[in-house]
Amino acid sequence: MNEHTSRRNDAPERVIAQLAAAARAAAQVLARAESARKDKALRAAAATIRDSTAAIVEANRLDLDRAKSLTAAGQDRLRLDPKRIGGIAEGLEAIAGLPDPIGREDQAWTRPNGLAISRVRVPLGVIGIIYESRPNVTADAGGLCLKSGNAAILRGGSESVESSRAIERCLHAGLAAAGLPQAAIQLVPSQDRALVGAMLTAQGAIDVIVPRGGRSLIERVLVESRLPVIGHLEGICHVYVDRAAELEMARRIVLNAKLRRTGVCGAAETLLVDAACASTHLRPILEDLFAGGCEVRGDAQTQAADPRVRPATEQDWRTEYLDAIISVRVVGGVEAAIEHIETYGSHHTDAIVTDDGATAGRFLAGVDSAIVLHNASTQFADGGEFGFGGEIGISTSKLHVRGPVGAEHLTSYKYLVRGTGQIRP
Amino acid sequence: MNEHTSRRNDAPERVIAQLAAAARAAAQVLARAESARKDKALRAAAATIRDSTAAIVEANRLDLDRAKSLTAAGQDRLRLDPKRIGGIAEGLEAIAGLPDPIGREDQAWTRPNGLAISRVRVPLGVIGIIYESRPNVTADAGGLCLKSGNAAILRGGSESVESSRAIERCLHAGLAAAGLPQAAIQLVPSQDRALVGAMLTAQGAIDVIVPRGGRSLIERVLVESRLPVIGHLEGICHVYVDRAAELEMARRIVLNAKLRRTGVCGAAETLLVDAACASTHLRPILEDLFAGGCEVRGDAQTQAADPRVRPATEQDWRTEYLDAIISVRVVGGVEAAIEHIETYGSHHTDAIVTDDGATAGRFLAGVDSAIVLHNASTQFADGGEFGFGGEIGISTSKLHVRGPVGAEHLTSYKYLVRGTGQIRP
Repeated sequence: MNEHTSRRNDAPERVIAQLAAAARAAAQVLARAESARKDKALRAAAATIRDSTAAIVEANRLDLDRAKSLTAAGQDRLRLDPKRIGGIAEGLEAIAGLPDPIGREDQAWTRPNGLAISRVRVPLGVIGIIYESRPNVTADAGGLCLKSGNAAILRGGSESVESSRAIERCLHAGLAAAGLPQAAIQLVPSQDRALVGAMLTAQGAIDVIVPRGGRSLIERVLVESRLPVIGHLEGICHVYVDRAAELEMARRIVLNAKLRRTGVCGAAETLLVDAACASTHLRPILEDLFAGGCEVRGDAQTQAADPRVRPATEQDWRTEYLDAIISVRVVGGVEAAIEHIETYGSHHTDAIVTDDGATAGRFLAGVDSAIVLHNASTQFADGGEFGFGGEIGISTSKLHVRGPVGAEHLTSYKYLVRGTGQIRP
Repeated sequence: MNEHTSRRNDAPERVIAQLAAAARAAAQVLARAESARKDKALRAAAATIRDSTAAIVEANRLDLDRAKSLTAAGQDRLRLDPKRIGGIAEGLEAIAGLPDPIGREDQAWTRPNGLAISRVRVPLGVIGIIYESRPNVTADAGGLCLKSGNAAILRGGSESVESSRAIERCLHAGLAAAGLPQAAIQLVPSQDRALVGAMLTAQGAIDVIVPRGGRSLIERVLVESRLPVIGHLEGICHVYVDRAAELEMARRIVLNAKLRRTGVCGAAETLLVDAACASTHLRPILEDLFAGGCEVRGDAQTQAADPRVRPATEQDWRTEYLDAIISVRVVGGVEAAIEHIETYGSHHTDAIVTDDGATAGRFLAGVDSAIVLHNASTQFADGGEFGFGGEIGISTSKLHVRGPVGAEHLTSYKYLVRGTGQIRP
């Protein structure tokens, strides 16, 4: 091979085209693979991950050694210990335990002319996943794609490259144990950022892109991609405490929605309190938040309720803090709460706390978000909590899939039409 | 208003932004409108169309007078007579008679922690539809969007502008009769092609674009659009006549699939004949095709069967003729047929004719197309024939919707989660 050939073969588009061709061939095998074979691969991969704990920890140490410049939170996201590695294996086993979405008949009817039509689920094909430093995404995304009969091309963050490679080896061992092609799950071969661009323009070779990470990653993907994107922009989630809210339940839900974990997209960012119960409910809820170490930015009435409350600006209502900060506003009842959420929210996840069924019904109907909860924490916005056996992300789009994206959402369908010689008049 | 202001207000982006803002407000009303109110609007629009037959014919005459340069087929697509106008009204009434997809609970389950999750259908929002000369699309698309609670921004072909405006007036009368906002269905105010570009880049203002027309229109939309597109590229549809095909059924289906209408996307373009029955089945089928005025381009074996068969080139297997031309190939059984279809087809609609159930099952499973038929004509690839009450198009994408696009496919969903105070541990 001369230098010219070598350069041409290394062009990012060429690299992605080769990966995608192998992925397409694998996808055709996966599309026809029986459920038991896919589940065997998932369970064998989980077992290999458990057996490889020491090697994965060692690979992860190489990543951590190079990641000294990351924040403590960033290093924590990157870190794998035996417990977390066990969690990754359990995640794959949970996916193996789910029903197979492929081949499921989800509609069937007969036409007056006798044609029997059924709609059955099929895989999408080749899915490109672009993510950041969490190495567990390698297994979660690879596993969900495999379950749904899709081939995955994975491009993880540079910080986690050794960890992801170690996990990829285990996934490949699982595929091999089940007699499935290794190209079903492929990490891109280098961290060259041009490969990301090549993935985003691989029309016809990759069927859909799933970005998973922070806002800057998602925005780059949305701007540059020429392929369909299943993505999640931001989660400006609200809790509305209604006049008919039971105070202790409201306190518990607000505290959990805001502070259980502040960096997740389902964390509450804004608290709306019904003016009709502000005099009784606002102060104790603020007490809980301050006791939990939360900064509070409020409107005039909230500031009047507690001197520690800082003034909220218009921008606060539009901000996803992903931190121990909350904006608080007193509103004139459920209709005003819905209006605030529709004006400032991101259509992700919003909750009402109330004992009034009619008011709850009004809120559930009126809030146009992927997930609308009554008397429960917004932190349930999670594929695992929905019973999807993990998630590849949460979609804030209304097209194809909305909310948590599990294996069943990585599918399309086809119509099977059975006749007896019918022709169209 | 000075000249500067006037120019700014007429900028294509501004025009579309104003239409889209009105559409968004209307969409919020439509999303909450009861089924009976939407159906009342559809029926009132249908009645107005019938009552306005003379006015619509007159508007159509203006279009036809300007369309002398169109082909005969083009003029026929454009022409409206009382019978076709009656058909448009019937189409709206058929849509009114469908179940309302909005608010339908399509999944429901309870989690171990007691959270009750249900998934209900909601509208997409604002849909932009870009189409060519068929004026009936104005009513079909507007009606399907209305049924599914979406606002529609319509940009029809320049040839049909007067006809479309006459139909729009009837739709507005129907909306008014039901107390629904007229901005639910809006034609763009001029035929300036820059308005198409402005629609395709109206991120956040229009939620999805549906192009409906020929390949050059679809390709322009796919290249230029920064919005999600529900589109249809081409229909290279196949009929495979298996060794176990009943000859009379095969003749009837091939003739209908190819020649009933040659310009529709579900028309067959390629006939595959099992080598095991070529000696008995090929010649009579070719006779029928020639008798129907069809040109046949075939492989060597097909040429040997009839001297009128011209040679097929590699390009023929990839060509959507949309005309009275068919390519014919003899293949070595169902597996070879599947391989041909997967290699050359467009994943639109393909049919097998066979009396062997196992072979049919193999074909239905192995062909990855939106519609796969057994013993029926490919010309059933149509939303009306599927019982969707018409269609806004046929999607060849696997994302969001595949195959005929009816009212129920112009929806998304949201999850309603009902708890009793649950927080996430």
